[in-house]
Amino acid sequence: MEILWLSEDDVKSILTMEDAIPAVESAFAEHGLGNVQMPPKSYLYYEHGDLRTMPAYIKKLGATGVKIVNSHPGNPEKGLPSVMAVIILNSFETGAPLALMGGTYLTAVRTGAAGGIAAKYLARRNSKAVGIIGAGAQARTQVMALAKIFDLDVVRVLDKSQARAMAFVSDARSFLDCDCVPVSDGRDACDCDILVTATPSREPVVRSDWVMEGTHINAIGADAPGKQELDPRLLRRAKVVVDDLSQAIHSGEVNVPISRGEYRSDEIHAQLGEIIAGKMPGREDVREITIFDSTGLAIQDIAVASLVYRKAKDLRIGTVLEYM
Amino acid sequence: MEILWLSEDDVKSILTMEDAIPAVESAFAEHGLGNVQMPPKSYLYYEHGDLRTMPAYIKKLGATGVKIVNSHPGNPEKGLPSVMAVIILNSFETGAPLALMGGTYLTAVRTGAAGGIAAKYLARRNSKAVGIIGAGAQARTQVMALAKIFDLDVVRVLDKSQARAMAFVSDARSFLDCDCVPVSDGRDACDCDILVTATPSREPVVRSDWVMEGTHINAIGADAPGKQELDPRLLRRAKVVVDDLSQAIHSGEVNVPISRGEYRSDEIHAQLGEIIAGKMPGREDVREITIFDSTGLAIQDIAVASLVYRKAKDLRIGTVLEYM
Repeated sequence: MEILWLSEDDVKSILTMEDAIPAVESAFAEHGLGNVQMPPKSYLYYEHGDLRTMPAYIKKLGATGVKIVNSHPGNPEKGLPSVMAVIILNSFETGAPLALMGGTYLTAVRTGAAGGIAAKYLARRNSKAVGIIGAGAQARTQVMALAKIFDLDVVRVLDKSQARAMAFVSDARSFLDCDCVPVSDGRDACDCDILVTATPSREPVVRSDWVMEGTHINAIGADAPGKQELDPRLLRRAKVVVDDLSQAIHSGEVNVPISRGEYRSDEIHAQLGEIIAGKMPGREDVREITIFDSTGLAIQDIAVASLVYRKAKDLRIGTVLEYM
Repeated sequence: MEILWLSEDDVKSILTMEDAIPAVESAFAEHGLGNVQMPPKSYLYYEHGDLRTMPAYIKKLGATGVKIVNSHPGNPEKGLPSVMAVIILNSFETGAPLALMGGTYLTAVRTGAAGGIAAKYLARRNSKAVGIIGAGAQARTQVMALAKIFDLDVVRVLDKSQARAMAFVSDARSFLDCDCVPVSDGRDACDCDILVTATPSREPVVRSDWVMEGTHINAIGADAPGKQELDPRLLRRAKVVVDDLSQAIHSGEVNVPISRGEYRSDEIHAQLGEIIAGKMPGREDVREITIFDSTGLAIQDIAVASLVYRKAKDLRIGTVLEYM
């Protein structure tokens, strides 16, 4: 028996945003229909970080497996990424391990794809301007996905590190066909149709009065208890859509406001999959503010990993490991 | 960055029962002291089987990671093992994946080691005769471990398949230095100091009146709700020790009797680690019947996998994979 090993470079050579978007959209639709298995993430806690184990089964895609991913915020000082992931894919028919792959780049791509899909259902169709707050790895794939779905004119980039904002602008030329400019004020970043927040903040970086009617926001940064990027008053003005209800209440953008009594979980409009599956409406009015609260789901990882595995076999990419 | 890959053959070439026993004993002791992290196993369910995800962190051993293991009882008809495992080991300091390895043989060894350790604390010291009911892969490592700890005279083997019993007896010559004989009746198997039950049974295979005073039983087979090997009356006569309280109540030998009201969870004497750590007594009398209810813990896997990884690096065994 053999297992296919795909390094991060192998995955990068195979995985495109064009492919990831429909795979992630199918996974969310199945989630909305209640057709997936996704036990809660389990956490191990260390002195300097944690390890998250994320199993999933998407029957319709025949895709099942587990992502194992750490979060060690101090790693960059040691010359290592904060986040490193490995994914195992299994056969649902026999349980046999089929593939092991680096899941770090894949995580960024599947998160970008979810943001793009959320904007497709929630942002105004003629959205042209994107604002970015927090110009790290997540922002890059958010913009990549948005550019596949909308005909963008301009991307405005804010980061508390001027150097990081400039690096983003410079890098954006490789995947973006419109203007990309640094801005130095939150108000300028919020002058947009679609706002992406992708910071590790534990307090609001967006004030409610900066956000115009009709804006859609992808709130990407908050993925752990205590993290928060948006003014809670903004949640009350908006139609809030989460990726997964229990995960969002535990660790998404809504977790701090709910724990403080500034927002109630029953005010959440829907899970994204329920909108994709047609069970709940998306945007209903050009003036409403919409927010997608993204925490990152195991079904996104497994749907995309399954796609990568099939492409790798077709293209004969990867290293075949003898298993037993 | 690199990850070490160890195939099942690599693991077999490195891992000895002599090494596994102290590693598993340390892991149980830390469990008994409350010094480990071990979130509940999570399950994915398929038409023909399931997939279990088992994360653990044993701080004292610096060992952390996740085992992913399936159970597909119909696999042998397809020429595949029912159970196939892969283990990922991570650095607790940086979260980086360090090693990926086949975990199938390792699972059998760590289960054997736990049985040996349980018997060390619970069986009579001068135990000479072992009875086996269910002569599969688990029985093999149970006997291997018992033979490291006791000076055995005879092993009596019962299996409903005569051919499997004979194969076990023949194979036992390679790892056993005493008589090993097939028997055809449960009473004969129970004529022993240490009884090992390792069947997939869902109803008792051992009658209470077959078991003599002073016997120790390693009840290995029951590891899922509905599984059961022992007459519930035997539990009431015995000092019952579990590997982990919540796992045993959910899926161990005690699960069916508890769910039927034939046994109460507060009748369980202790967790094995509490005895190893000196917090609870083991055997106190030559006449008492003792039962170890083994469900299999993630800490056993991770302790042994960590040992295998260190030995593999010393011996330069395995395949170095480029990760990122």
